[in-house]
Amino acid sequence: MKKLINKTEDVVTESLAGVAAAHADLVKVFYDPNFVVRADAPVMGKVGVVSGGGSGHEPMHGGFVGMGMLDAACPGDVFTSPTPDQMEAATKAVDGGAGVLHIVKNYTGDIMNFEMAAELCQAEGIDVASVVIDDDVAVQDSLYTAGRRGVGTTVLAEKICGAGAEKRYDLQKVADLCRKVNANGRSMGMALTSCTVPAAGKPTFDIGDDEMEIGIGIHGEPGRERMALKPAKEIVAMMAEAIITDLPFKNGDNVIAMVNGMGGTPLIELYLVYNELEQICQGKGITIARRLVGNYITSLEMAGTSITLVKADGELLELWDAPVHTPGLRWGV
Amino acid sequence: MKKLINKTEDVVTESLAGVAAAHADLVKVFYDPNFVVRADAPVMGKVGVVSGGGSGHEPMHGGFVGMGMLDAACPGDVFTSPTPDQMEAATKAVDGGAGVLHIVKNYTGDIMNFEMAAELCQAEGIDVASVVIDDDVAVQDSLYTAGRRGVGTTVLAEKICGAGAEKRYDLQKVADLCRKVNANGRSMGMALTSCTVPAAGKPTFDIGDDEMEIGIGIHGEPGRERMALKPAKEIVAMMAEAIITDLPFKNGDNVIAMVNGMGGTPLIELYLVYNELEQICQGKGITIARRLVGNYITSLEMAGTSITLVKADGELLELWDAPVHTPGLRWGV
Repeated sequence: MKKLINKTEDVVTESLAGVAAAHADLVKVFYDPNFVVRADAPVMGKVGVVSGGGSGHEPMHGGFVGMGMLDAACPGDVFTSPTPDQMEAATKAVDGGAGVLHIVKNYTGDIMNFEMAAELCQAEGIDVASVVIDDDVAVQDSLYTAGRRGVGTTVLAEKICGAGAEKRYDLQKVADLCRKVNANGRSMGMALTSCTVPAAGKPTFDIGDDEMEIGIGIHGEPGRERMALKPAKEIVAMMAEAIITDLPFKNGDNVIAMVNGMGGTPLIELYLVYNELEQICQGKGITIARRLVGNYITSLEMAGTSITLVKADGELLELWDAPVHTPGLRWGV
Repeated sequence: MKKLINKTEDVVTESLAGVAAAHADLVKVFYDPNFVVRADAPVMGKVGVVSGGGSGHEPMHGGFVGMGMLDAACPGDVFTSPTPDQMEAATKAVDGGAGVLHIVKNYTGDIMNFEMAAELCQAEGIDVASVVIDDDVAVQDSLYTAGRRGVGTTVLAEKICGAGAEKRYDLQKVADLCRKVNANGRSMGMALTSCTVPAAGKPTFDIGDDEMEIGIGIHGEPGRERMALKPAKEIVAMMAEAIITDLPFKNGDNVIAMVNGMGGTPLIELYLVYNELEQICQGKGITIARRLVGNYITSLEMAGTSITLVKADGELLELWDAPVHTPGLRWGV
């Protein structure tokens, strides 16, 4: 295992310490239980937006804490759900009296623990709403999931809900917004290589030198098909077809697109993938009105990419364009 | 070779097409010869800032074109110097009557071709100044370089010189600023794995499963020492020691720091590296006043990191903080 780490059991806390040192103007990091909150939390009168999940997907979620996006993030161990006490502490830390939204990716452990934390907080008088993201079109059930997995749409939902909360939407409205983003978002991923969880010390799965996995999950869960490596044009066409026909996205739609790197794929390839996606969308009359190209929801050092499309009306585009200031996403400020 | 590409000979142009499609509000891309210019070029009365080099280091340089940073970038083939006609065309495209600065990384081919382009432009009445960046403390001469290689300080020089140009510093003053950043900047890199140039189809160098290369160049050029993999704390200490003693950086200095990923290293590790660097600097009374943590000057999918420190007075910090709006770096707007 080749990693820039010290002891495997310290990876998450030492990386969080780096985030705290690098971004003290934006975030505060608490330990035991671990969570990251925006430096000015709680913002009184504003809905708090909280997410979390296993570590190893950085910048998601800790890198999205700050003005206009998340109020707090709960990082679990690598590829392991955070515990209810993390979510409870984070929720209390960001409650500004207007309630707190939990944005939960659809993994069994995440769902169960966020539910438990929500109940604990509600028992103490904090209004909590939860929305589950399940946007991955690849497979119906998966290794850690009943139903579809939650993947790239989570990033866009965090940005858009954060913007809604900044505009002082109430809890019901921020939760509805999150459901709207999820209902309009679809994703699919693929991998060229596996990744290695530090505590495991060996690759999560084996894959041949001439093979790729289409429909991979962000923890290396099996996808739709193991097949021979193909040119980018064919790979993107397969993924885009699966995504576009699922919603379906239609001629005349505006979308926010994300071409996401899994962690080990260089930017020169991600822009090449974006070029293919742009051509496919243009051919179908789908306008990419906004986009992200880069590493946003990763799987450690896995090589591969995922594509997310969210059909966006004027409200979603306006909230997308609103200022955001986090370690991982910043504009307008 | 596992890459998200089509034909190897089309990687650079297809990736540039992706940049053009994704960032039409910021940049225009020209082909044959290939160069990227800011969308509003030329900016009349402003010094144009141009850089370039081989592709495969993205986001450098094309991702740094835009307001407050570069006016143009010339991408060569992967790990291959751009040709004089690219630099000549880019220089002409961004000349707003106040002259053009060429920021050149110290590689023999880059130097020679930028010199030729400068002469061609000067013959047509464009005032051109050139500054060479040679900040890599690892080795004195290298595979493609006489003297020290130009690496991470280039990114910081592009940001700071771009800000100076926006403030309408004249050509002499922007060139002096670039020399000041280079004189105060030092870098060193290391690799855990090699990378594969698409046209070559096989790894640039071999490295054992338990080995790392300290002092690596951004094209996989040999560094100071091949040694057994060590904990991050020891790796960062070795690199920081080499950098800090070289300038030397001293108790009381303010620095801009960059912890850069080589392309295949996940962010969770880069923040862990940053945490080690922060502790070392604190221990020596060096204040990291500003920082970047992420992939800024990469070597395709190489796993590894580089550290750059630039000693920064009030002028450099003020220019660092000035607004920038490029595909790869954005704040204040």
